[in-house]
Amino acid sequence: MPESWVNSAERIGADLHLELSGPGGRRAALIRALREAVRSGRLPAGTRLPPYRSLAADLGVARNTVADAYAELVAEGWLTARQGSGTRVAERAAPPRGHARVPTRGPGRVRGPRHDLRQGAPDASAFPRAAWAASYRRALQQAPSEVFGPGDPAGRIELREALAEYLARARGVRAEPDRIVVCSGFAHALRPLFGGGVLRGPLAVEAYGLGFHRELLAAAGVRTVPLPLDEHGARVDRLTRERAVLLTPAHQFPTGGPLHPARRAAVIDWARARGGLVLEDDYDGEFRYDRKPVGALQGLDPERVIHVGSVSKSLSLAVRLGWMVLPERYVDGVLAAKGDREAWASVLDQLGLADFVVSGSYDRHVRRMRQRYRDRRDRLVAALAERAPHVEVTGVAAGLHAVLRLPPGTERSAVGAAARRGIALDGLAGFRHPDTDMPAHDGLVVGYATPPEHAYGAALEALCEALAPGGESGGHPAEPAACASPGP
Amino acid sequence: MPESWVNSAERIGADLHLELSGPGGRRAALIRALREAVRSGRLPAGTRLPPYRSLAADLGVARNTVADAYAELVAEGWLTARQGSGTRVAERAAPPRGHARVPTRGPGRVRGPRHDLRQGAPDASAFPRAAWAASYRRALQQAPSEVFGPGDPAGRIELREALAEYLARARGVRAEPDRIVVCSGFAHALRPLFGGGVLRGPLAVEAYGLGFHRELLAAAGVRTVPLPLDEHGARVDRLTRERAVLLTPAHQFPTGGPLHPARRAAVIDWARARGGLVLEDDYDGEFRYDRKPVGALQGLDPERVIHVGSVSKSLSLAVRLGWMVLPERYVDGVLAAKGDREAWASVLDQLGLADFVVSGSYDRHVRRMRQRYRDRRDRLVAALAERAPHVEVTGVAAGLHAVLRLPPGTERSAVGAAARRGIALDGLAGFRHPDTDMPAHDGLVVGYATPPEHAYGAALEALCEALAPGGESGGHPAEPAACASPGP
Repeated sequence: MPESWVNSAERIGADLHLELSGPGGRRAALIRALREAVRSGRLPAGTRLPPYRSLAADLGVARNTVADAYAELVAEGWLTARQGSGTRVAERAAPPRGHARVPTRGPGRVRGPRHDLRQGAPDASAFPRAAWAASYRRALQQAPSEVFGPGDPAGRIELREALAEYLARARGVRAEPDRIVVCSGFAHALRPLFGGGVLRGPLAVEAYGLGFHRELLAAAGVRTVPLPLDEHGARVDRLTRERAVLLTPAHQFPTGGPLHPARRAAVIDWARARGGLVLEDDYDGEFRYDRKPVGALQGLDPERVIHVGSVSKSLSLAVRLGWMVLPERYVDGVLAAKGDREAWASVLDQLGLADFVVSGSYDRHVRRMRQRYRDRRDRLVAALAERAPHVEVTGVAAGLHAVLRLPPGTERSAVGAAARRGIALDGLAGFRHPDTDMPAHDGLVVGYATPPEHAYGAALEALCEALAPGGESGGHPAEPAACASPGP
Repeated sequence: MPESWVNSAERIGADLHLELSGPGGRRAALIRALREAVRSGRLPAGTRLPPYRSLAADLGVARNTVADAYAELVAEGWLTARQGSGTRVAERAAPPRGHARVPTRGPGRVRGPRHDLRQGAPDASAFPRAAWAASYRRALQQAPSEVFGPGDPAGRIELREALAEYLARARGVRAEPDRIVVCSGFAHALRPLFGGGVLRGPLAVEAYGLGFHRELLAAAGVRTVPLPLDEHGARVDRLTRERAVLLTPAHQFPTGGPLHPARRAAVIDWARARGGLVLEDDYDGEFRYDRKPVGALQGLDPERVIHVGSVSKSLSLAVRLGWMVLPERYVDGVLAAKGDREAWASVLDQLGLADFVVSGSYDRHVRRMRQRYRDRRDRLVAALAERAPHVEVTGVAAGLHAVLRLPPGTERSAVGAAARRGIALDGLAGFRHPDTDMPAHDGLVVGYATPPEHAYGAALEALCEALAPGGESGGHPAEPAACASPGP
């Protein structure tokens, strides 16, 4: 990295901060400043210094002053000068220790698990780089200048129009661009909703859910009250004095069932009767594999439901974009709470995503990934049926994860057996609300979307081994190739 | 926009959310679902429906079922079918009112001021689109897959390395990548610093500063205590029991002077003696025009100063990226407060910026803008000297704004005179801390960087007219062309 900066520094005359002060004239001051910059490690060994002319112009001194200072420091051994390679900081001038660069926390030092089956992330190797780059470039070329000025806290109109179209068509959301507020994801949506007083606690939540969300809410001073789950989803009949309820109606997270149609109707009735609000986390609504898609709850009553979604599952966590579709009466309050000056979400990514949706690239990508994840889920179900028949895959065929129901009391040992085979995954216990009194279930949450395509077979094989009856000793007679096969 | 979606829908088979339920078989259910989607406005007039095959595959029904349903709805007048143009929603099928799309808050409806001289934004028309697009594309092509997975809350290592190099070289910051935490700007930095308990109030601030920051701090429950300003900057000798102080040492915002070297030393002494911290907002440090650059205060003591910067002034508000350079002992606390899962800042923009810095494009752009803003400031000074000699331009030649000192009691009328000429700008009063007892100054804060290049002359001319002696009646005899000339 220093090398490439250095190359350009020569060409363009890089910025170099030097303060010329103290006794003895400009030349002496420049020598002192350069020496100090090298000694402190600010200019590492090998750094190429700007050409005389460039530095002289920056500092308002004569070129000869710079040339003299460089020559003096070369003589002292701080710098080296070589024909065609300019003036550089000498190797031996580098500070021996203390100021040396600390080794970084870079990807090279972090060793991930051998088999990553944690839920929450799509296959990172499947990011549609070419199509995304094309959308981004096109959007950047066509953008009016005002894009680069202070933004609309609601988000770019291009993206809100594209999302309105898409969410209506693909998710059954009743969305106009003016009801949509762009954010950087679900967690970011919680801030203006609760911080701005649009929503107030206590908030009813599903008894199993994302601990990360509960922590965020607790940090914001919002008390959460767990609703038990049964085979029809959250027991919304238990709602009483809460002001709002957070639900994952399309695909309960993490247990995997959709909210029963009667419950969908009941929660809307509750909201209308009590002046309550439903916060709909539509985190993986695009991924349903059994041809029984469940539309957004918001479609039942746009004035009682806040619909929240993002591209975290459909595209990547790296594109930090999400959206809220709000009841009309809350739009101004949310925008005020979000703040005029802080749109947070990258405006350029917003334009890129608008183009990505409008051009059809988003549909194409979702379709491709839907097929891929459906195949992976099928392989998981088939392999477990053969190799670990005591493990039940629960929930509907949807999403990026499956829950494996385990015999009571075996969850912890199963997570341990998986860990010993290099598999990272979560047990159900971590998703359970601490205050719920519903019976606990033992289970594993398997994020089958997470590994890259080439690594999925090995991860599945390792999982089958860890879960095979007779423990993890590998004594089961089944054909090991069943897990690693390319699937039906 | 519907047209372009429609084109791609035909090609790829767009996603269309339809729930088939109720009595009478699949065909009847599909007809009901489509009719309802049109009636509710979810499928607007003119929308092209997916081809039979594509929709049939999605719903798990026979192609003929879809063909029959389409034909029935064409017969009923809900859809139209034309050779080569597919099946579309009929124009007359659109809902007459109520469900019609609300007009949007788009850029077309918002009329900005004729002359925008508000501070805070660089010239939006000068965004380096081609160079930025090249960096982004290169970064996207070269990125390892893990980029698209869950991110490091500290930010991408590529960007932290590039910033460490740049900030050391250009701003005199003592920065290692491991001390840098990427954020989306100064306001975003405040959250983990205060919310996470790394910093606690009360916080001393400069008596003149950004009201937006004071509001954010107040919302976070942090009390701010104003320090008076004099000709040497903030009166840091007034610090007593505060735990931390927020300063703009390179270029006091908005009054425009640098913190005197003796004060710089004094505030570090205070921090060491009292265990205090300095929060350095280096908002426009790259832009100094008089060859007397002031390095970052952080260079004096990296363990006592938190250095915060961003690209908001140097590049664009649309690239929402900033950084904190932290004392080593606070890094873990800030990362914990920031949260593992929420990096907020776009990871792809982070990679783009890393390439932009390393390739030298950032230096080139800063240099080009420095020259442009220097010229604009010179023109402002020259024009006012001739046309409104009673108005004094204060502060050093630096930054993206200037403060025009006005005779006592005239600020409000000057802002009004400017507004009547279509000029948006701020008076000094709005930046004053409500609790300060230092004497108030009348003045205007002129953001000379904000207008596009072609519009600056006219804005300057209008400003001269508004400020000319004898009021705004235009009775001043000076040559009007002086303001609008292309400068020295």
